[in-house]
Amino acid sequence: MNAWTMVRPHVVRWSECDLYGHVNHATYLTLFEDLRVDHWRALSGADAAPDRPSPVVASLEVRYLRAARFGDSVTLHLRTASFRRSSYVHEYALMRDGEPFCTARAVLVVVRQDTGAKAVLTPELRERLIAEGAEEG
Amino acid sequence: MNAWTMVRPHVVRWSECDLYGHVNHATYLTLFEDLRVDHWRALSGADAAPDRPSPVVASLEVRYLRAARFGDSVTLHLRTASFRRSSYVHEYALMRDGEPFCTARAVLVVVRQDTGAKAVLTPELRERLIAEGAEEG
Amino acid sequence: MNAWTMVRPHVVRWSECDLYGHVNHATYLTLFEDLRVDHWRALSGADAAPDRPSPVVASLEVRYLRAARFGDSVTLHLRTASFRRSSYVHEYALMRDGEPFCTARAVLVVVRQDTGAKAVLTPELRERLIAEGAEEG
Amino acid sequence: MNAWTMVRPHVVRWSECDLYGHVNHATYLTLFEDLRVDHWRALSGADAAPDRPSPVVASLEVRYLRAARFGDSVTLHLRTASFRRSSYVHEYALMRDGEPFCTARAVLVVVRQDTGAKAVLTPELRERLIAEGAEEG
Repeated sequence: MNAWTMVRPHVVRWSECDLYGHVNHATYLTLFEDLRVDHWRALSGADAAPDRPSPVVASLEVRYLRAARFGDSVTLHLRTASFRRSSYVHEYALMRDGEPFCTARAVLVVVRQDTGAKAVLTPELRERLIAEGAEEG
Repeated sequence: MNAWTMVRPHVVRWSECDLYGHVNHATYLTLFEDLRVDHWRALSGADAAPDRPSPVVASLEVRYLRAARFGDSVTLHLRTASFRRSSYVHEYALMRDGEPFCTARAVLVVVRQDTGAKAVLTPELRERLIAEGAEEG
Repeated sequence: MNAWTMVRPHVVRWSECDLYGHVNHATYLTLFEDLRVDHWRALSGADAAPDRPSPVVASLEVRYLRAARFGDSVTLHLRTASFRRSSYVHEYALMRDGEPFCTARAVLVVVRQDTGAKAVLTPELRERLIAEGAEEG
Repeated sequence: MNAWTMVRPHVVRWSECDLYGHVNHATYLTLFEDLRVDHWRALSGADAAPDRPSPVVASLEVRYLRAARFGDSVTLHLRTASFRRSSYVHEYALMRDGEPFCTARAVLVVVRQDTGAKAVLTPELRERLIAEGAEEG
């Protein structure tokens, strides 16, 4: 398994917790979305725009291992596991004290938002993904 | 495949859409959460409370098939696929005009929120899940 | 004071409550937003679109009188208090058992989203607002 | 006017923006909530807990001056304008390049969450608020 490409600290916000004091299950995905969006901006060197290709989530697998709580100091992690012609696979984790609390895997398809058409990953993007440790296929 | 146990209409809210005009990927899960919470209240005949067992999401698989948009009239669906000693599996779908836009499958573990201890599904709960069409195992 | 133009039932969702079991203070405003958006669609006979005028919130006053809780059956209320050349004032309330839990007042300016330019309320829109009980000025 | 007690950088998240590409009006309040919660933790030297006093929002005034957008680098500001026996007044701002985009003023009442009873600000808390520049009355 390749190393994490992004690691970012986060302190659990009041608004992220539910009635039981736990981080809500959907909130983890919004935290991972922050990483995904920033990863794409860095990768493509461009802001998201309707007429430029950008990734959309095609599928998602999430494991909730422990419950993070209000005020917890956690870290958010992202790496690209693999890529294909016009898609790639991200892995995410939220950890506290080195232990995973939530992990996820997303298949992302690169599309133009205005037409909905799939876009092929350019050689430059493929190179950068390989440099991150992602495998083709 | 058994029939849907719950079907509920929903009109996509402004706050559920992102910059591209699509329902945000995490928002689908919050809509499914509404069904899950109401299903448990009906099943257990009780409100959620820290000292009573209630389901927590252990894992989740989601497929995003089409993008729902602001103002879309959709339906939300839930059924229990199966159950075990202290867990059960939900299937969810968001559909428009009979077509699935997003489907999900969640493994739910029944725990007491105050202790975190797993709780066994009572014979009454198992009977009700069987009556819904859920299979044991 | 004129009567409410819109009254809509709502059951407080799990995702709307915070760690103390109360509806989060920002959530009330999202519930009022639902009314505002639907009011404008009915008033203007058109969906929101960047090249058509639509209201943006210029200012807001909110009073939190009682705390609504998970599962509470409440009603959401909207009326237009007054209007001017290119703005109007909404009043909102969330009530339970006839008692106000949260009330708000918003000044809304009608603008074209693509240019940011203020748009004048057409005679048809002014007539409809007067028919609702709104006062000019 | 006293100086800001807290200033914190923030980059506008994808999930904070609506269909028009603007930060949603309720999202500003959640960003200000983060400051309020951290301010109280620092002030009281304690985490929020049901049996300890903590502030609840009694009323709110918000002005939306300009629209912040996805990816904008902004700063969040908080100061305590004044306090009384068991309440205090916060002022907040979201700024970009030194210009205010959204400002707000909140009246906060200190209550015990378990009983709902108002709690008197202790001499220590009053001293700290005065040290911040807050005025009594």
